[in-house]
Amino acid sequence: MQTQSYAIIGTGALGGFYGARLQRAGCDVHFLMRSDYEHVRQHGLVVESKDGDFALPHVHAYRDARDMPRCDVVAITLKTTQNHLLGQCVPPALKEGGTVLVMQNGLGIEAEAARMFPGHRVLGGLCFIASNKIGPGHIHHLDYGHVKLAEYAADGRPCGVTDTMRKIGADFERTGIPVQLAEDLQTARWQKLVWNIPYNGLSVVLNADTAELMANAESRRLVEELMREVVASAAACGRAIPESFIAGMLDTTDKMKPYRASMKIDHDERRPMEVEAIYGNPLRAVSKAGFSAPKIEMLYRQLQFLDARNQGK
Amino acid sequence: MQTQSYAIIGTGALGGFYGARLQRAGCDVHFLMRSDYEHVRQHGLVVESKDGDFALPHVHAYRDARDMPRCDVVAITLKTTQNHLLGQCVPPALKEGGTVLVMQNGLGIEAEAARMFPGHRVLGGLCFIASNKIGPGHIHHLDYGHVKLAEYAADGRPCGVTDTMRKIGADFERTGIPVQLAEDLQTARWQKLVWNIPYNGLSVVLNADTAELMANAESRRLVEELMREVVASAAACGRAIPESFIAGMLDTTDKMKPYRASMKIDHDERRPMEVEAIYGNPLRAVSKAGFSAPKIEMLYRQLQFLDARNQGK
Repeated sequence: MQTQSYAIIGTGALGGFYGARLQRAGCDVHFLMRSDYEHVRQHGLVVESKDGDFALPHVHAYRDARDMPRCDVVAITLKTTQNHLLGQCVPPALKEGGTVLVMQNGLGIEAEAARMFPGHRVLGGLCFIASNKIGPGHIHHLDYGHVKLAEYAADGRPCGVTDTMRKIGADFERTGIPVQLAEDLQTARWQKLVWNIPYNGLSVVLNADTAELMANAESRRLVEELMREVVASAAACGRAIPESFIAGMLDTTDKMKPYRASMKIDHDERRPMEVEAIYGNPLRAVSKAGFSAPKIEMLYRQLQFLDARNQGK
Repeated sequence: MQTQSYAIIGTGALGGFYGARLQRAGCDVHFLMRSDYEHVRQHGLVVESKDGDFALPHVHAYRDARDMPRCDVVAITLKTTQNHLLGQCVPPALKEGGTVLVMQNGLGIEAEAARMFPGHRVLGGLCFIASNKIGPGHIHHLDYGHVKLAEYAADGRPCGVTDTMRKIGADFERTGIPVQLAEDLQTARWQKLVWNIPYNGLSVVLNADTAELMANAESRRLVEELMREVVASAAACGRAIPESFIAGMLDTTDKMKPYRASMKIDHDERRPMEVEAIYGNPLRAVSKAGFSAPKIEMLYRQLQFLDARNQGK
């Protein structure tokens, strides 16, 4: 199968890692970046990884999307807090008939992309990875890395496994990254929220890593209660997640090394937190379904307060 | 009316203030204390107060309750986190037929006292005061100060205004402290929780004073939602609090100077927080009534986590 060309919108912890792996595997990859541009143009990208370190001395780096070639796939790897830039960054890099691949956290992001880029297929690329950018063009991949792909449909129904998913999936698999093709984007998104909602928010509010949250009986119970609210919310939105999924998530987290969730890292580095994508959008979906999720709602408000203060608002 | 004798169990921000005022008004007052004993025995008590500063160079100070005379009223002014000391501190100072006056925060504390000291009347003394101990025998009374008295009945029914309440109320009034005699202890306790539950907990979890919590739209809304849960919880326990009470509390707090709730002070000074009295007991009462209060419950778990970490548990 022929590989596709990729525009990576945001060369950070995620875009830098996946883009570099795609390029190393032989794909034609183009990286959009801002502050790292000069450095990467001269020195390329460095990936320190538990799968093996590697460097790409030469990459196609861009500071302005208008300079990019049009690609088969535009992968959005910015934080959702930067999504006001998409209208400007995505269209110049997107081929007619090209695909938008949303590699972000949260719910409802693909719907937003579909509204912004009509006539294009939109896929969700759910990333299960612990990765940080530790310097200009310097990515540190700590753990995991697998990607779940699913296609978005405007009517919200499951798309099943599509050819577009297969093609992109094949490119990622060439890089050695485990890929899963999911039949229903919304179920995949809600499943990811079962982890993201409790751990991201509580780690910020309680200033704790995953191990601390799991070690104390009360915070562990709160994690579990929040997970149950996510599962109930998904059900209210027509997506069934089995109860056993919760036990699995708790077990996985128990076995993880102490981990600082991405929102905690954002907060500690005084970056805006992805509060709307991970909390606001799911809560609006839940409310539209006539359901309520009081503990998620409380966490949402607490995070909005902390985010506003952290951003000096 | 003849004044009564008082044993003050715990000469801190509360006991120091109210005890000193009672002594200054001519009551026979006996103060139990620990770390401040030597200092107070030599120098007495100093009260800096928005009502006017005063000093009591000579007070009856005790380090051991067994040295105290038996008094008409034993006022418990320890933090509830010290209540394991009551079995040892109260009986030696309590006259036959004497009254136990519980000047503490939370719910269910009078029931506990009634179980511990059978055959004695138990009153709740709800203190609306901003006061700190700022040095040995040195109290700083910042604002407010009024006391609401109500009598406890084992069957949980309102006692109305009793003679015991009137007598103690008269002593407090002699000191110039506004006193209110409430017909139903439980209603008074739940009403106080309408303020205590949101502000104490959120100020700790969000590291904020009352003004910050009120200034941000999201935390303000969370305060209000928690207040509504307290009102609904009170109703589930058979105590009606009108909706307008919430608006009144918000308005009062808007008009307050930025205020650090007592639990926040305890947390900042690494003292145990009154999590069980203010959150655990109300939640257990609510659960017994077959009701749930998810946001209060979440705050409870967050505080338990933070308290355990703060206490190095």
